[in-house]
Amino acid sequence: MRVVITGGAGFIGRHLARKLLERGELAGADGKPRKIGEIVLVDIVEAAPFPKPDSRLTVMAGDIADEKFTAGVMTPDTDSVFHLAAVVSAAAEADFDLGMHVNLDGTRAVLEACRKLSAPPRVVFASSVAVFGGDMPSTLTDQTALTPQTSYGVQKAIGELLVNDMSRKGFIDGRALRLPTIVVRPGKPNKAASTFASSIIREPLAGQEAVCPVEADARMWYLSPRRVVEAFIHAHDLPASAWGWNRSLTLPGIDVSVGDMVESLRRVAGERFVKRIRWEPDPVIKRIVAGWPYRFAPERALKMGFKADKNMDEIIAAHIEDELGGKPVD
Amino acid sequence: MRVVITGGAGFIGRHLARKLLERGELAGADGKPRKIGEIVLVDIVEAAPFPKPDSRLTVMAGDIADEKFTAGVMTPDTDSVFHLAAVVSAAAEADFDLGMHVNLDGTRAVLEACRKLSAPPRVVFASSVAVFGGDMPSTLTDQTALTPQTSYGVQKAIGELLVNDMSRKGFIDGRALRLPTIVVRPGKPNKAASTFASSIIREPLAGQEAVCPVEADARMWYLSPRRVVEAFIHAHDLPASAWGWNRSLTLPGIDVSVGDMVESLRRVAGERFVKRIRWEPDPVIKRIVAGWPYRFAPERALKMGFKADKNMDEIIAAHIEDELGGKPVD
Repeated sequence: MRVVITGGAGFIGRHLARKLLERGELAGADGKPRKIGEIVLVDIVEAAPFPKPDSRLTVMAGDIADEKFTAGVMTPDTDSVFHLAAVVSAAAEADFDLGMHVNLDGTRAVLEACRKLSAPPRVVFASSVAVFGGDMPSTLTDQTALTPQTSYGVQKAIGELLVNDMSRKGFIDGRALRLPTIVVRPGKPNKAASTFASSIIREPLAGQEAVCPVEADARMWYLSPRRVVEAFIHAHDLPASAWGWNRSLTLPGIDVSVGDMVESLRRVAGERFVKRIRWEPDPVIKRIVAGWPYRFAPERALKMGFKADKNMDEIIAAHIEDELGGKPVD
Repeated sequence: MRVVITGGAGFIGRHLARKLLERGELAGADGKPRKIGEIVLVDIVEAAPFPKPDSRLTVMAGDIADEKFTAGVMTPDTDSVFHLAAVVSAAAEADFDLGMHVNLDGTRAVLEACRKLSAPPRVVFASSVAVFGGDMPSTLTDQTALTPQTSYGVQKAIGELLVNDMSRKGFIDGRALRLPTIVVRPGKPNKAASTFASSIIREPLAGQEAVCPVEADARMWYLSPRRVVEAFIHAHDLPASAWGWNRSLTLPGIDVSVGDMVESLRRVAGERFVKRIRWEPDPVIKRIVAGWPYRFAPERALKMGFKADKNMDEIIAAHIEDELGGKPVD
């Protein structure tokens, strides 16, 4: 089978590709496992080569909102699409038109290209808990209304609506996952307002200083890179009947305060790593983060077999194992 | 001030224009009443001339999804926009691309043109209770999630998201009203699945037979043409502070069964009119109508001063007065 990953140069896209290559198969339209013949990594820039070259990998660079380009990516034999490409929260807020272009027009172009394939492909769409905002209940449930208070959240909510409608129409077989904040992201800080959540763990473990722009009581809803990749694959492989009329859900995560994250870092790595965190509250970041939901009761996702991490200690230990060869930098 | 009404050839658009001409003023950006100098009726076809010609009326015909056309409609001195233009429910379901073109691209073109005006205009957007669907609570509240099960509902939900986000960004000062089923619509049946609700009152009163495709126990959420026009004007004239961060609401209406509507017709007009209704249940229409919400607790709208009709008798009596010169056709 042929699998397309948009946002394939990004860290989750690459992580997912690696996992799929390892696994070698995905559920076909009939639910039976099928061998993966090709994985196409699409992004605005060419994905960097993988440490282990693999003949099943193809790399394409272009603008997914360019209908001609995207139609070329989605050759008629495409079976499955993981649509991860997006302009992140702070960038979509700073440049409204760019966010609309990539997050709305891009998503629409991807879905329209999917609609033209010989058979409706399974499409897994990366949405975000940023679809929630404003006056929210203290615990968010599967019934909570989407009232995003950022352009990024609005664009993701629109994507969910389109994935649902086009699935209902039989154009695609879609599944939309609202991602918690992913920690620990490898690499460098990005333009997301949540980027510090990874920095305060990643940088100290890599021998660098990190700045924490919020107070210790700031809470967020977290999921690890390992678990989010598992969730993408699980969402894909579930039969359409498991989704029914509602193709969206919030992924299970864990609700942790920044203070407790730091305690986890202390337990897993040691006091000297914690000392590399500089606390410099930034009123803008504090206000944005305070508006984010952090307590969910994702009953439907749990029933459908999606899994959260056990705790922050486990997340940090996995990061050390996956990204630092098992040993933090002293 | 200059007022643009999209969907201006339609019956609600014309009704609204007539009322605005009569009233002569609307709230300006500072909340103080300002004289209406021009009302522009925009639609895909030219609006028919009004019985009473008025020099303040301008008529323009074109596709609102055509950015150049819509930019030309929204001259820099435009103060207020009532965005009513839409492809109705059954038509948007039958032709997905047409619905996306008018209801999504059209709405976006209107909002983008508004964003370019010299000052952010007040924009009143006609949404619909079709934004609700699927598994709904028995009574829908201001907190109920939008889970539309038609392409029309999806496109209206997207419109609401855009109106909210562009208001938050300060590009427009938007207000989105979810319209109940409007009865009694004058004129001819249209392509909406709900069109029978008007037909079973309108046709008998005009001396014609009507077909009722649902059973007597089918319930819907109704509002009269008089009240919906009042609601548009009220929504416009409320200050932005009354709306706050949430620019959408469901309009108050009344929940009436088709059987009770027929009883109202009997009370207001007489038995001989009721006899003109032929009951011919249509399984497709029955199923669509059964999926519609009909019981709402629109607390926020009531607090903000929006008003429902008293009962169906009042709605039918108003129709006889407004459209039949006070006398049904024997």
